Amino acid sequence: MKKLEEKMAELGDNFKSKHELKTPKGTQDFGPEQMAIREKVISIITETFKRHGAVTIDTPVFELRKVLMGKYGEEGSKLVYNLDDQDGELCSMRYDLTVPFARYLAANKIERIKRYQIAKVYRRDQPVMTKGRFREFFQCVSLEIKSKFKKRFKDFDIAGPGELMMQEAECLKIADEVLSKLELGEFEIRINHRLLLEAIFEASSIPSTLFKTVSSSIDKLDKVAWIDVREELIKEKGLNEQMADSIGKFVCIGDEHPDWNNSSLFDWFCGDNLTTSEEVRKSIIKAIEELKLLFNYANLFGCTESRIVFSPSLARGLDYYTGIIYEVVMKDLSFNTPQKSNESPTNIEDRKQKKKSSKKEETEEKEESSGNIGSVAAGGRYDKLVGMFLNIGEKSGKKIRDVPCVGISFGIERLFAIMEMKMKIEKSSAVRTSPTQVYVASIKSVGNNEKMKPNMLHERMKICSKLWAAGIRAETSYKANPKLLEQFQFCENESAQIPWLLIVAEDELAQDSVKLRCVATREEKLINIDDLVSVLLEKLKV
Amino acid sequence: MKKLEEKMAELGDNFKSKHELKTPKGTQDFGPEQMAIREKVISIITETFKRHGAVTIDTPVFELRKVLMGKYGEEGSKLVYNLDDQDGELCSMRYDLTVPFARYLAANKIERIKRYQIAKVYRRDQPVMTKGRFREFFQCVSLEIKSKFKKRFKDFDIAGPGELMMQEAECLKIADEVLSKLELGEFEIRINHRLLLEAIFEASSIPSTLFKTVSSSIDKLDKVAWIDVREELIKEKGLNEQMADSIGKFVCIGDEHPDWNNSSLFDWFCGDNLTTSEEVRKSIIKAIEELKLLFNYANLFGCTESRIVFSPSLARGLDYYTGIIYEVVMKDLSFNTPQKSNESPTNIEDRKQKKKSSKKEETEEKEESSGNIGSVAAGGRYDKLVGMFLNIGEKSGKKIRDVPCVGISFGIERLFAIMEMKMKIEKSSAVRTSPTQVYVASIKSVGNNEKMKPNMLHERMKICSKLWAAGIRAETSYKANPKLLEQFQFCENESAQIPWLLIVAEDELAQDSVKLRCVATREEKLINIDDLVSVLLEKLKV
Repeated sequence: MKKLEEKMAELGDNFKSKHELKTPKGTQDFGPEQMAIREKVISIITETFKRHGAVTIDTPVFELRKVLMGKYGEEGSKLVYNLDDQDGELCSMRYDLTVPFARYLAANKIERIKRYQIAKVYRRDQPVMTKGRFREFFQCVSLEIKSKFKKRFKDFDIAGPGELMMQEAECLKIADEVLSKLELGEFEIRINHRLLLEAIFEASSIPSTLFKTVSSSIDKLDKVAWIDVREELIKEKGLNEQMADSIGKFVCIGDEHPDWNNSSLFDWFCGDNLTTSEEVRKSIIKAIEELKLLFNYANLFGCTESRIVFSPSLARGLDYYTGIIYEVVMKDLSFNTPQKSNESPTNIEDRKQKKKSSKKEETEEKEESSGNIGSVAAGGRYDKLVGMFLNIGEKSGKKIRDVPCVGISFGIERLFAIMEMKMKIEKSSAVRTSPTQVYVASIKSVGNNEKMKPNMLHERMKICSKLWAAGIRAETSYKANPKLLEQFQFCENESAQIPWLLIVAEDELAQDSVKLRCVATREEKLINIDDLVSVLLEKLKV
Repeated sequence: MKKLEEKMAELGDNFKSKHELKTPKGTQDFGPEQMAIREKVISIITETFKRHGAVTIDTPVFELRKVLMGKYGEEGSKLVYNLDDQDGELCSMRYDLTVPFARYLAANKIERIKRYQIAKVYRRDQPVMTKGRFREFFQCVSLEIKSKFKKRFKDFDIAGPGELMMQEAECLKIADEVLSKLELGEFEIRINHRLLLEAIFEASSIPSTLFKTVSSSIDKLDKVAWIDVREELIKEKGLNEQMADSIGKFVCIGDEHPDWNNSSLFDWFCGDNLTTSEEVRKSIIKAIEELKLLFNYANLFGCTESRIVFSPSLARGLDYYTGIIYEVVMKDLSFNTPQKSNESPTNIEDRKQKKKSSKKEETEEKEESSGNIGSVAAGGRYDKLVGMFLNIGEKSGKKIRDVPCVGISFGIERLFAIMEMKMKIEKSSAVRTSPTQVYVASIKSVGNNEKMKPNMLHERMKICSKLWAAGIRAETSYKANPKLLEQFQFCENESAQIPWLLIVAEDELAQDSVKLRCVATREEKLINIDDLVSVLLEKLKV
């Protein structure tokens, strides 16, 4: 409260106006520093998608209300922003990128596309700014979509029997590339198969009606100890002890054998030690064979092997995933715990480290203290979802057809937040606010050489012109005769951090030269004006 | 009507669903091809702003309604999209980028910023899709803002007496760079000074109350002949013949002397041949001196001299411009009239060519036939506008302070449209839909070498992995054993136009080599796998 009062006093008269100048609840402005960080993250993701041949599309920020209606369940529908009925069509702001994309596909009869999209979506949720939950936020989705049913259009169909797990493997590779290039720290890509989950449910005699609710308990195993999950399954989810222990045997196998690698886990699932029906065994073996194929492909695509982890307890998004599911989890932020940054924990080490405590509270606290990071990307195969949306505008009662889809979504707002933290802690110059590479300064003319003033300005302008022509980002003072110190300070300013300074002065100009100063080291070097561009291009090379 | 019926028949059963899948009135989807073009235009503009040291900001797509209220006049306010009152704050979609930016400045007490912003704005206008008037469209604004009154904050203030015309000159340079890099055709940057317009109004005894309405007639002189403008001034704007002829003398001087260059025009305005009061003469000379300084600076900044044209009849945006005004006009599209593309008409030639006809209809028709292009960028100095908005939240009755601002806006939707036309006409490969640079193909295994199939797929995947690691955009078929012809066709597909193809085959693999094929020339070359990346990087160099 004291702090608040101080703040109030500080703001003084401005408080009221400040309040009136705020953005709507749950939304925010982004200044140049935040934008520089966001642009960096977005450009790494975009470039990765493009490297894998994906194209992008854009849809309006609002849609006809009837397109969105009934797509997000009762809960979701309440959170949709509606536009006023201003004597026209009824419209609503997009709630996600999936429904508008499905509408786009249906409207344009597109049967095959590999698209990515990074755009803002709108949800009238209760905002929790400190936890990064906003009403206006970015979504980032990549989706490989392809129908195997219709081939009405001239798009090429390069799918076939060979494709099994190929697209999933490429998504893992994309995740690996994006997170590696972001350099935020160690991460892990956890993988499971819906088929395997279904089989072990059956092997444990758990009714299929409980599949989703039991899965959501199981999925907590990366944060909560088995003993607590078991309790929840029995007390809240209605399993008997036998069922709980049976499923526990499957999903905890990795934790019980922290020294096993992916391959040992696969062997265990395919081994003779399971007492199940022949049918269930076949399902398990099929799932494991597919997982093996995926791991093999991910390997061929050059994924870092230690980061690809088979996680039998991963059970997320089962409302729509129909095959492989995966999730990317930050394990160790490169900047938060610098003493650990040289270690590169493998999945096995991680299994050892995990879950010493059986108390929920402590785990939650631990998560809180590490910045509450967790999952930064997720995806999988979902062959039912888009077909459902594609039925927009088609006759009801028609059978929903499968549309094979494999995708990955990055939690881009979370990645922005982690990158911002990193930059703040590292006071990194990697992301500067100012794009300027070279500042063209001049020495202040004094006293008797008054006539040199415009000359200096003109020389600075001509030099800027040369630099711009060569694609170099350059600025100069708008003053005719600025002080040198003032110009130095401009470059050294924390948010600008302009790396190079050119100093134009009479004496050097007489020899057709200018001084080039490295702002960081303060080293100076005389350079002929004709060589300026080539010298700078060399210095600026990444 | 017949065409419509045919179209209806063609759509058949799909008509109804098509209709239900449409975007809201005045909005549109953008497919991969349009997005590729838009990205190209946006990246040229963004890179130019960055080259000149500008930063960017982002504000929410909707604002508190009270922030927008009363900012756009009665007409504008009717066009603002309101969000439904869903039990919370009253919000409206942004109508432009200026008001949210002013709110951002006021909220953050920013006194100096060089910002650009490219974002969508929303207006419930009557959409005319064929003329490119939409309800959701991009705006692109650059603004150098600086207050000379307050220096409360630690931002550097590098302004001073030397700055006169420096920022205006940099805006001209930015316009010149953007339009040159877009390569859409010949353009002209027309420049005038509000001070000069005010002086010649006074010299013609036109009451200052008529300034805006008479200016808007004068401004038509680039499209309409003087005789028609004169008639409008007398019959509709209430000038007498003497006033009309006096102002005509000033604003038509360029047309009367098509052989004069900028310098001759400046001389004429400063010469003895004007019968005006001493005071008006002083104003004229001051305006001309500032224009001369601007032209000199633009020159030093390396603007193409023949494109910078003094236009005494340019009289746009006088609701807010307080000093220099400028406008960029396309004169000759590079693709529309290819026989003219080698000519580079100077401003003098243009003056000669202009306005042979005195009929409004014909000029309009001519404009229509050339794609109705006209102005693609505009800007100037506006020292009053932002101050007005900065008063949001400040006590009313307070004097509005000047905030020195110089800016340039690109008609980015118009530039998108021109670029799209150009790409269509040129069937240009400069903008491809697919980002892919290299397609990794393999020769279909047949008959007895069945065991080679997975091997081929694996080799393709390993090669992709190598290319991705080197930052090369690569794709391969998801099929295990695709036909070669199918893979060729995929690369040659009009929208993909993938330039390079790698062909993996058993024989070559045995020698650790693959074939590199240039899709355009169909030339093939054998390359050792170890040299692959370096060879491709060399080929892909721009």
